[in-house]
Amino acid sequence: MQKLTQTANTLIEALPYIRQWSGKTFVIKYGGAAMIDPSLKRSVAQDIALLHYVGVNVVLVHGGGPEISQMMKKLGKQPVFVQGQRVTDEETMEIAQMVLVGKVNQDIVSLINAAGARAVGLSGKDADMIVARKMQHPEVDLGWVGEVVSINRHVIDALTEAGYVVVISPLGVGENGETYNINADMVAGDIAVALQAEKLLVLSDVRGIMRNVEAPETLISTLTVAEAERLEAEGIISEGMIPKVESCLRAVKGGVPRAHLLDGRLPHCLLMEVFTNEGVGTMIQ
Amino acid sequence: MQKLTQTANTLIEALPYIRQWSGKTFVIKYGGAAMIDPSLKRSVAQDIALLHYVGVNVVLVHGGGPEISQMMKKLGKQPVFVQGQRVTDEETMEIAQMVLVGKVNQDIVSLINAAGARAVGLSGKDADMIVARKMQHPEVDLGWVGEVVSINRHVIDALTEAGYVVVISPLGVGENGETYNINADMVAGDIAVALQAEKLLVLSDVRGIMRNVEAPETLISTLTVAEAERLEAEGIISEGMIPKVESCLRAVKGGVPRAHLLDGRLPHCLLMEVFTNEGVGTMIQ
Amino acid sequence: MQKLTQTANTLIEALPYIRQWSGKTFVIKYGGAAMIDPSLKRSVAQDIALLHYVGVNVVLVHGGGPEISQMMKKLGKQPVFVQGQRVTDEETMEIAQMVLVGKVNQDIVSLINAAGARAVGLSGKDADMIVARKMQHPEVDLGWVGEVVSINRHVIDALTEAGYVVVISPLGVGENGETYNINADMVAGDIAVALQAEKLLVLSDVRGIMRNVEAPETLISTLTVAEAERLEAEGIISEGMIPKVESCLRAVKGGVPRAHLLDGRLPHCLLMEVFTNEGVGTMIQ
Amino acid sequence: MQKLTQTANTLIEALPYIRQWSGKTFVIKYGGAAMIDPSLKRSVAQDIALLHYVGVNVVLVHGGGPEISQMMKKLGKQPVFVQGQRVTDEETMEIAQMVLVGKVNQDIVSLINAAGARAVGLSGKDADMIVARKMQHPEVDLGWVGEVVSINRHVIDALTEAGYVVVISPLGVGENGETYNINADMVAGDIAVALQAEKLLVLSDVRGIMRNVEAPETLISTLTVAEAERLEAEGIISEGMIPKVESCLRAVKGGVPRAHLLDGRLPHCLLMEVFTNEGVGTMIQ
Amino acid sequence: MQKLTQTANTLIEALPYIRQWSGKTFVIKYGGAAMIDPSLKRSVAQDIALLHYVGVNVVLVHGGGPEISQMMKKLGKQPVFVQGQRVTDEETMEIAQMVLVGKVNQDIVSLINAAGARAVGLSGKDADMIVARKMQHPEVDLGWVGEVVSINRHVIDALTEAGYVVVISPLGVGENGETYNINADMVAGDIAVALQAEKLLVLSDVRGIMRNVEAPETLISTLTVAEAERLEAEGIISEGMIPKVESCLRAVKGGVPRAHLLDGRLPHCLLMEVFTNEGVGTMIQ
Amino acid sequence: MQKLTQTANTLIEALPYIRQWSGKTFVIKYGGAAMIDPSLKRSVAQDIALLHYVGVNVVLVHGGGPEISQMMKKLGKQPVFVQGQRVTDEETMEIAQMVLVGKVNQDIVSLINAAGARAVGLSGKDADMIVARKMQHPEVDLGWVGEVVSINRHVIDALTEAGYVVVISPLGVGENGETYNINADMVAGDIAVALQAEKLLVLSDVRGIMRNVEAPETLISTLTVAEAERLEAEGIISEGMIPKVESCLRAVKGGVPRAHLLDGRLPHCLLMEVFTNEGVGTMIQ
Repeated sequence: MQKLTQTANTLIEALPYIRQWSGKTFVIKYGGAAMIDPSLKRSVAQDIALLHYVGVNVVLVHGGGPEISQMMKKLGKQPVFVQGQRVTDEETMEIAQMVLVGKVNQDIVSLINAAGARAVGLSGKDADMIVARKMQHPEVDLGWVGEVVSINRHVIDALTEAGYVVVISPLGVGENGETYNINADMVAGDIAVALQAEKLLVLSDVRGIMRNVEAPETLISTLTVAEAERLEAEGIISEGMIPKVESCLRAVKGGVPRAHLLDGRLPHCLLMEVFTNEGVGTMIQ
Repeated sequence: MQKLTQTANTLIEALPYIRQWSGKTFVIKYGGAAMIDPSLKRSVAQDIALLHYVGVNVVLVHGGGPEISQMMKKLGKQPVFVQGQRVTDEETMEIAQMVLVGKVNQDIVSLINAAGARAVGLSGKDADMIVARKMQHPEVDLGWVGEVVSINRHVIDALTEAGYVVVISPLGVGENGETYNINADMVAGDIAVALQAEKLLVLSDVRGIMRNVEAPETLISTLTVAEAERLEAEGIISEGMIPKVESCLRAVKGGVPRAHLLDGRLPHCLLMEVFTNEGVGTMIQ
Repeated sequence: MQKLTQTANTLIEALPYIRQWSGKTFVIKYGGAAMIDPSLKRSVAQDIALLHYVGVNVVLVHGGGPEISQMMKKLGKQPVFVQGQRVTDEETMEIAQMVLVGKVNQDIVSLINAAGARAVGLSGKDADMIVARKMQHPEVDLGWVGEVVSINRHVIDALTEAGYVVVISPLGVGENGETYNINADMVAGDIAVALQAEKLLVLSDVRGIMRNVEAPETLISTLTVAEAERLEAEGIISEGMIPKVESCLRAVKGGVPRAHLLDGRLPHCLLMEVFTNEGVGTMIQ
Repeated sequence: MQKLTQTANTLIEALPYIRQWSGKTFVIKYGGAAMIDPSLKRSVAQDIALLHYVGVNVVLVHGGGPEISQMMKKLGKQPVFVQGQRVTDEETMEIAQMVLVGKVNQDIVSLINAAGARAVGLSGKDADMIVARKMQHPEVDLGWVGEVVSINRHVIDALTEAGYVVVISPLGVGENGETYNINADMVAGDIAVALQAEKLLVLSDVRGIMRNVEAPETLISTLTVAEAERLEAEGIISEGMIPKVESCLRAVKGGVPRAHLLDGRLPHCLLMEVFTNEGVGTMIQ
Repeated sequence: MQKLTQTANTLIEALPYIRQWSGKTFVIKYGGAAMIDPSLKRSVAQDIALLHYVGVNVVLVHGGGPEISQMMKKLGKQPVFVQGQRVTDEETMEIAQMVLVGKVNQDIVSLINAAGARAVGLSGKDADMIVARKMQHPEVDLGWVGEVVSINRHVIDALTEAGYVVVISPLGVGENGETYNINADMVAGDIAVALQAEKLLVLSDVRGIMRNVEAPETLISTLTVAEAERLEAEGIISEGMIPKVESCLRAVKGGVPRAHLLDGRLPHCLLMEVFTNEGVGTMIQ
Repeated sequence: MQKLTQTANTLIEALPYIRQWSGKTFVIKYGGAAMIDPSLKRSVAQDIALLHYVGVNVVLVHGGGPEISQMMKKLGKQPVFVQGQRVTDEETMEIAQMVLVGKVNQDIVSLINAAGARAVGLSGKDADMIVARKMQHPEVDLGWVGEVVSINRHVIDALTEAGYVVVISPLGVGENGETYNINADMVAGDIAVALQAEKLLVLSDVRGIMRNVEAPETLISTLTVAEAERLEAEGIISEGMIPKVESCLRAVKGGVPRAHLLDGRLPHCLLMEVFTNEGVGTMIQ
C-alpha cells in the first residue's frame, strides 16, 4: 500500500508539468552515451513514450559518428577529421547514409516502438525535408559536409498529427539532388525553430555547462543567450560542447522558449528535466 | 537526485497503464467520505486532472444526500426515507435540485478547475440529457423519485470533445418537463453504458466487497457478474452497497468492460486503481 | 382560410428580418417581471426557441435578486444592500450561488426545453468562464461582490456550435478560485462584447428610456452612445435603469452594433423588436 | 401595438412546424398558374426563401409546357401531342431546352434571389444529374421524350450544403449523351426519392383531389397510397391530375413520408401547408 | 511497340508541366471557330477534361454572338450593333439569355461530359454571381448591355471543390434584379481576377498578336502589359482583338500571372500551350 | 507544329486511362534490371511521378538482393542461399537492413524526388507497419527470414493523404520486436491487399509469362487465377518467376482486381501498361 501511495503522489507531483507541456512540441537531440548503453537506450525510449502519451509531440534527431567510423573501418576506410568535421568523400557519404538511416535510425524506431509509442524514421532526404548546401571551409574541402538551408516541415506535421513519434537522420539534400552529411546538433536546432518547438533538449555526455569542467559544483543551471555567448567568447565552454551550445543558441534566437543541455548518462534525464521542479543540466533561455 | 530518480521510475512504471487508457472514457461515481473530507476532495480532483491530461475522457456523476438533508433541516423540513429512498415532495425536489446543482456540482467543478483541468457542470435537465419517469413503489408514493428512461449523450460528447471534464447532477426530466431526483449510482451506471465507457469507477466508504465485512482480509479483488449476483442473492453484500453493486452490474451487462468498487477514503484511490498492477477494491467484469 | 392567409402574410413580413439575423449571435439579459409571471416566462422561452430555429445563436444571462433575498429570509438571514449592491458574506454567497445556479438557471433551461429548443445552463465558474475580481467600494466592504476581469468564450462556442441555447448565471471565479456574485447586467454586456454579438437585448420593467418617466409618450426610440451618456449625466435616466444603460453602453463601445432596452412586461417583446420594422423600447447604437 | 402582438403570436404558432422541418429537404414541383401570375410567382419565391431561412433544404423542379408551345409557334412550328405527351423532334427538343433552361429556370432563379435566398439553376444534363432513356409508346414514336433511369444527387448536395436553393429543369441525358425532355412531375418524384426528402409538394391548378371535381367540399385531405390507387382505378382522378398523383405515389412508395397536392392558385399555399395545423390540398402518405 | 514508346515519351515530356499546373485554376474564354466546328469543339472538350484530370480547376466563360443573331433572325428581329456592341432591347435580352444559357452553355456542358469530366453550367444570374450595371455610351442607349461590378465567387468554389468543371454564361444581374448582357471577354478577365487564377486563356480566330496581320511570321510570343498597351495605342492591335487584349490586360493587372491569346482554330491549342515548352499564340505577363 | 500536334494527340489518347485510374491506389514491386540501369531507374521514377500527378496513390515496394550480397562480400561475408532463400544470421540481417533501408530505399526516394513528386521512405519496422513471424523451413534454419502476419496501413494512409509517394523496404517486426527479412514480392502482394489497391504491378527481367521461355511470341497477355495456377502446376512457370506469380495470385485472391507482370527492362513499361490499350506483359485477374 505504501508503494501505491508513493506512486500516486509522484504522479500528482508531475501533474502541473504534464498540464504545461500537453499539446506542445519537444525536439530531442539524441547522441553520446545514451545511444550506446543498452539500459540508457531503453530509458530514453521510455521517456519519449511517456512524453508522447501525456500529449507532447516528440521529434528526435540523432547523430551517429562512432557507428559511421566503425563501419568505415570494417570496410577498410580510415576516417579523417578536420577541426571536428568528418571529411566526407563519395564513399564515406554512402557509408554514413547507410549507417545513419539503415542502422541507427531503425534501432531507435524499434526501441521507441518497444516502449509502446509508435515511431517513424525519416532522413532529411525524405520528402526533401532538409534542404542543404555544401559547407565551405577556408582551407580544406570537406567533401559532402553540408549545412541547413531550409526545413520543409510538412512531412513531420503529417506524421505527428497522425500520432507518430518522428525520428530524423541528419542528412540533407542539395539543389541538384546530392546528399549532404550535416551535424546533428545543428539539424536539431533548425528543426526546433522550424516547428516552433516549446523545448529543444540536447543529450550530451557531460553534466551541462560548468564554469570549471573539473568541478561539478560549478554547473550553471540557467543561462541567457547573452551569458552563453559571453562564456563561449571567454573560452569557458569546452570544444566538444560548442556545437551543442550553438544549436541551443540558434533555437532560442529562433523563437524556441527554452533549450536544455542534459546529461544523457543519467537514466531518465528527460523526465527529470521536464517533470520536476529542480530540473537537471543547463537551461538556455 | 534520488528523489528525481524515483519520480522518473514511477512515471515509467505508469506508462503501460497510460498507454492503455489514453483516448478511453471513464465514468466516476463520486460520493461518500471522498466528497466530505477536504483533503480527499482535493485528492480526487487531482486524480481526475491527471486522468484528463493522459488522455482519458472523464465524466463524473455525484450524489449529495447528506447535503440535501442538511439544507432541508435548515429550512425546517424533516427528511423522510422509505427503504433507503428519500420521499420527495415538491418542496424537497426543489431543495434537492438547488443543493445538487447549485452547491455540490459547482463545488466539484471548482475543485477540478483548481487542480488544473477544466470542468463543466451539467444536470440531467440540461439539454434534456437524462430522460426519466416516476419510480413506482408497491406501497408508498415516493413523490418525485425517478428512474432513468434514456440518456442523450450528445451534450456530454460536445463537451468532452471540446476538452472538458463533465460533472453531472443526478436529476432527470419527465415527458411533461417535470423534474425527478434519481439515485446517483444508477445514473452513473446508465451513463457508463450510454457512453460505452471503458470503466465505471464507484467510490464508496468501504474497502470493496468482503466476504466478511468485519474481516478486511476477505476482500474480493475480482468478481464476474454471475458471482456478484450470487453473492447478492446470498445476502453477503451489505444493504448500503447494493445500489453500487447494481450500478456496476448494469454497466458491465450493458457493455462496459470493467466496473470497480473503490474505497474513497483512500487518498488517490483512482490513480492507484488505474495506474498500478495491484489495483484496489473490487473489480466486476 | 383568412387565418391561414394572415399566418402566411405575417411570416412573409418577417422574412427580411429572419434573413438579417440568421447566423448571428444575440445576448439576452433576462430579469424582472418576465422572469416572474408564468405567462411571460413562457413567452420569453418561445421567443428564444423561435430565434434559435431561424438560425440565431442565443445566449441568455439571467439575474435573480428577489429569489436570493427570499431564500435568505427563509434561512433566517436579512439581506443588506449598499447603494443597490448586495453585501455578500460567505453564507450569502453560498445561498446566491445555490439559488442562481440550482434554481433560477435550471428553471429557465426547463422553460426553453419545453418551448422546443435545447438549452444548457452554465455558471461563470464552469470552465472558468467568467474571471472576476473583488469590486472595491470606497467606504464599505461589499464582501464577495465582483466585477468581470475577462470572459473565456470557448465553452459558450462549443455549446452554441453543438446546437444549444446557453443560459448563464452571473457568477465569477477569482484568481484563487473564490466565487464572486456579479451584476447580471454587466455580465451580459461583457459577454456580448466577448462574443462580438450582433445585439444585446436587455429586458427590464419599464418601457425604455423616457425623457419623463411619467409620460410614456416621451419614450426615446433611438440613442447614440453620446446621447445616452448625456442623458445619464443630466440625471434623466432613473437609478434603477443605470446598470442596464451602462451594460448597453459597454456593449456598444465594445463593438456590438446595437443594444436594446426592452419592456419585459410586454409578451413576445423580443420577437416584436427583432422581427418588425417598428421595434419596441429604446435602441442604443 | 396590436399588429406587433399579432405578428409575434403568428410566429409563435409557427414554431412547432419550424422545429419539425428544420434540417429537412423539401422537393417542390412548380408549375401551372403559380408560374404565370406575377403576384403568385412572387408569393412562391417568398415561401421558398422563408423555408430556406428556417433551415429547410429546398429543391424545386419546374415544368414549362405553355412557354415551350408559345416559342414553337413564334418559330413557326406547330406543337403536336399524343395522349398528353409532346411529340419531340430534334428541333422541338432544342426549343424545349432553350425555353426551360434559358428562360423558365432563370426567371425562377431571379425571383428567388429577389426574395432574398440564393438560388442556382441546373438542368438534368448538368453533371449528368438525370440519366434518362427513350420513353416507349406502343403506337407512335414520341421522339426525344424520356423517362428517368437514375438520379446523381451529388451536385444537388454540393449546392444545398453550400447554402443554395436548387432549381432544376426536367431534362435528362441518355447513354450516348443525347438529350431527353421528361415530364416534370415524374422528375420531381424521382428526385424526392433520390434525396430521401421529407416532403414532395406538387403545385397544381386545382384544390386537390376531389370526389366530385365540381364540388369543392368533396376535397379529400388525406389519402393512403392504397386509397389513391383505388381512386385512380375508379377513374375519380381527373386526367390532368394523373401524372401529379403518380409522382406523389412514386415518392411515397420510394420512402418520402408525405407528398402533397397543393392549389398553386392560392397565394402562399406552401407556407399554409407546412406551417399550420389545417394544411391545404390533399396529402398522400 | 514504337507507338507505345512514343506515347510514354510524350507523357514524360508533359510531366514538368503537369506538376506545375496541378492544383491551380485556369479560366478559359471560349468562342469563335472553336465553338462552331464540331471537331474543334470536341478537341476543346478533351483538352478541358485532361486539364481537369491532371488537377487543374477549369472555369470556362463562353460567348455566343452568332447564335444570338441567328435566333433573332429566326424570330424576325434584326440585330443592331453600335461600335461592336449589340443594342439590346427587352426582347433581345430575353433571346440572348435563352440562347446563351439554354443552348450554348448546355451544349458545352454536354461536350465536356462526353469527354469524361463532369461539367455544370451557370449563368451570372445564378447565385447573383455576376453583379452588373448598365454600360454607358456617350451617344446611344445600348439598352441591357452591362459591365461587371463585382463577382461572387462562392458558387464557383463550391462546384470546383465538389469536382466539377464550371461553364459560365456572361449575364449579369443589376441591383434591381434586372438582367444584363455582358461582353464575355470582359467577364472572363474579371472572373480570372476574382478567382486569382494561374492563367487566363482566350481563344480567338487569329494566331495571336502580330505586328503585321498579313505576315504570320510577325507573331509576338510574349508581351508585357506596358508593351501591349503601347501596341494598342499605336493602333497595331486589330479592332476585333481589342476586347480580348483588354481582358488579358485586366487579368494581369489584377494579379493573374499570365494571360494567353490562343488560336482556337488549332486543334488542342490549349494542351499545346500549357504542356509544351514552345507554347502557341501570344502571352501577356 | 507537327511535334505539338503529336504531343496533344498522345495526351488525349491517354485521357480515358487517366480518368479510370485517378484516385486509385497502385502498388508497384520494384526490382531487377530496372533498379540497376541508371536510365531505367530514371524512367521508373518518371513513370511514378506521372502516375502521382494524374491522381494515382503510388506505393512502391523494393527488393535489393544483389546489393545485400555485394555489401556482405565487401564486409568479408559469404552469402548462403537455400532454395532461393538467403540464410540470414544476425550479422546478415543487420547488413540487409542497412543496405535496404539506408541505401536502396533512399536512392529510390531521391530518384522520385528528382522526377518531381515527393517520396517518403519507410521500412516495415516504422510504425510496426509489417508484422512478421519466422518462416519455417522443413530442413534448415533460415535464420531471420520472415513471412507477413499482418499489415498496419495507417502510416501509409497518413502519408499518401498528405501527398507523398511511399517507398517501402521489405522488413518486418516480430512480436518481440525482432527484425525479419521478407521476400519483397510477397510484401508487395500483401500490401496491395491491405490497401485494397486497384492494381499490383510487378517489375521483372522477363517479358511476362511465356508458354515457351525461348519463344517471345508465346507471351500470354491475360490469365485468370485458375489458369495461372494450372500453368504453375504444369511447371511452365520458371522458378525465378514463381514468387512474382505467387504475389500476383495472392493480390487477386485478396480482392485486387488486376495484377501485372511487366518487363522492367523496357523503359516506361509502367506507363505503357496503364495508359495504352495494348498493355505489355502478363495480366492476372
